[in-house]
Amino acid sequence: MAIRFEVLKECRRTGARLGRLETPHGTIDTPVFMPVGTQATVKAMTPEELEEIGAGIILSNTYHLYMRPGHELVEKAGGLHAFMNWNRAILTDSGGFQVFSLSDLRDIREDGVNFRSHIDGSKHFITPEKAIEIQNALGADIIMAFDECTPYPCEFEYAKKSLNITGRWAERCLKAHRNTDKQALFGIVQGSTYADLRRESARQITSLDFPGYAIGGLSVGEPKDIMYRMLEVTVPILPGNKPRYLMGVGSPDCIIEGVMRGVDMFDCVLQTRIARNGTAMTSRGRVVIKNAEYAEDFTPLDPECSCYTCQSFTRAYIRHLFKAGEILGLRLTTYHNLYFSLSLMKRIRDAISSDCLPEFREEFFSKYGYI
Amino acid sequence: MAIRFEVLKECRRTGARLGRLETPHGTIDTPVFMPVGTQATVKAMTPEELEEIGAGIILSNTYHLYMRPGHELVEKAGGLHAFMNWNRAILTDSGGFQVFSLSDLRDIREDGVNFRSHIDGSKHFITPEKAIEIQNALGADIIMAFDECTPYPCEFEYAKKSLNITGRWAERCLKAHRNTDKQALFGIVQGSTYADLRRESARQITSLDFPGYAIGGLSVGEPKDIMYRMLEVTVPILPGNKPRYLMGVGSPDCIIEGVMRGVDMFDCVLQTRIARNGTAMTSRGRVVIKNAEYAEDFTPLDPECSCYTCQSFTRAYIRHLFKAGEILGLRLTTYHNLYFSLSLMKRIRDAISSDCLPEFREEFFSKYGYI
Repeated sequence: MAIRFEVLKECRRTGARLGRLETPHGTIDTPVFMPVGTQATVKAMTPEELEEIGAGIILSNTYHLYMRPGHELVEKAGGLHAFMNWNRAILTDSGGFQVFSLSDLRDIREDGVNFRSHIDGSKHFITPEKAIEIQNALGADIIMAFDECTPYPCEFEYAKKSLNITGRWAERCLKAHRNTDKQALFGIVQGSTYADLRRESARQITSLDFPGYAIGGLSVGEPKDIMYRMLEVTVPILPGNKPRYLMGVGSPDCIIEGVMRGVDMFDCVLQTRIARNGTAMTSRGRVVIKNAEYAEDFTPLDPECSCYTCQSFTRAYIRHLFKAGEILGLRLTTYHNLYFSLSLMKRIRDAISSDCLPEFREEFFSKYGYI
Repeated sequence: MAIRFEVLKECRRTGARLGRLETPHGTIDTPVFMPVGTQATVKAMTPEELEEIGAGIILSNTYHLYMRPGHELVEKAGGLHAFMNWNRAILTDSGGFQVFSLSDLRDIREDGVNFRSHIDGSKHFITPEKAIEIQNALGADIIMAFDECTPYPCEFEYAKKSLNITGRWAERCLKAHRNTDKQALFGIVQGSTYADLRRESARQITSLDFPGYAIGGLSVGEPKDIMYRMLEVTVPILPGNKPRYLMGVGSPDCIIEGVMRGVDMFDCVLQTRIARNGTAMTSRGRVVIKNAEYAEDFTPLDPECSCYTCQSFTRAYIRHLFKAGEILGLRLTTYHNLYFSLSLMKRIRDAISSDCLPEFREEFFSKYGYI
């Protein structure tokens, strides 16, 4: 087995749980947030800085690496860990999401998906077997089954048909997977925003013996209360002794709500993306650093934060960097936003540990705001 | 006195010398290379990283800081050191070079220069007194007299008239300077590419009691042998007990040739600029990392380099980062190029110390190439 997962504690007042996930590249405390390194780099960060802020696992995108530089090259480099010089854990997605959201002219068949590259228009055909072959070459610790991520909104009939394809693809992925001793393959629950379909998909996928289960197709534009409702109908069907991963989520509020509904793993580009636009996540909510109000503000981005950025630089300086188009500006906000999110996860784990997650949630939102 | 300079050793076979420059923000071994932090940041680098690679002094541009965020703001922040969180030495130029090279519609009078901002077209009038006032507000350890930097080529008559204005402006700068105990004001020799004018300017400027002297108006497009010739006629006129700074230079070859002609201080944007375009300076010459030949090259940028970039990443990975437009690519090459240049200075100082600078020069160029 590539991974071992242990639930250390279950919250009596919420669905939250504290866990420990052992991978071939280190042990991770859950609930965990995984910074996203789409193209074999978490944008603007070095692996050293990721270690410094305490990241134990990052996500990288199979679709992007397959397109550029190509999984064969990464394999020649000794796999993704060696290629990017990251010695802690990595999870790769299956590429499914990007095939459906980024590529042109996609054509979904029972066998797989025809599509054109968003980079050069070249034609590609990805099957579940191919998605696993690519991920086996990349060598991440956790890899994902190839699924169809339905958009929002999505017709019931389409979502039903799609989840059945996703189910059959999941079986094919399990069969195609080569490195079961080094890479754990997770199955993905779909079913759009329909409670019945979520349950059906969860039953289907959990009937297959995956070492972990993901909930996909959420955070794709649906209202948050629908996302939470889908978690509530899905999570109880997932086995308690395996990690649960909510894909592409999220913001601090979605993370806290997800944890309370039993989710163990999260990833999101939000932290790094808004950082590059000059938006910092702080204990008092978001700070849009270019705003004129910060021109002469000589306090840190977040006075309650102990990260390098907040210990070293003022809002006035970071604002200047953004106004002047300087790379250091987005470096510093990226560093801070990731630190903020990893620190949030630590506080969430501490709250579960000391049985005060609902109180923590209340306190957090009273300052951060619920957005 | 803001600075103290001591020549520790003079090379018997060349004009090179080993020195020690004490500033209010630390002591610097000379010959020294100063990374350029135009807008209060050395592009893509943190101050922590600059310390890590051993930078003892950086340069920042008065013109840019005057325009954005404004010297008053920097002063409110506690000066440039505090604003950018850099506790080692800083040198600011006078803004003269940028007024002449960047701004629009400039109009030079005896009194000063009228020009329009390159950012927003706003009108400004800079006098020698204003240039010093701005630099006093910024608070760098070394500041520069306001001069006219003549372009190349330049008519003899114009260059002669200009050096006389520069001379009169130098006197006005000396008078206007407020913080002589904390900031050392350097005079600047001009005179274009005319040996007679260089000598005349050097005599004029050294007749004024500056704690250091710069050679300006070189590396502006003239052939390198002309630059070296101008150094050869200028340096002997400069007092031996004060630091000599060759402005805006340079490449490894210009630095070595400059050192051999008695220059103590250098600055240049070359290292960081070419890094952002994916060009690395290595012990075997320049490496243009996007080239296809590096696609599967799993060796470091420079196998002889011990910097973080070269100890951690391969050419294939850095090439991928550049092809994919990732910020980490230019971070890593910037870090390497600056490390390479600071390490070159250390090797130059060691060579002076052990009386083998000519041999070092030969060995260096046999591998690097003379460009």
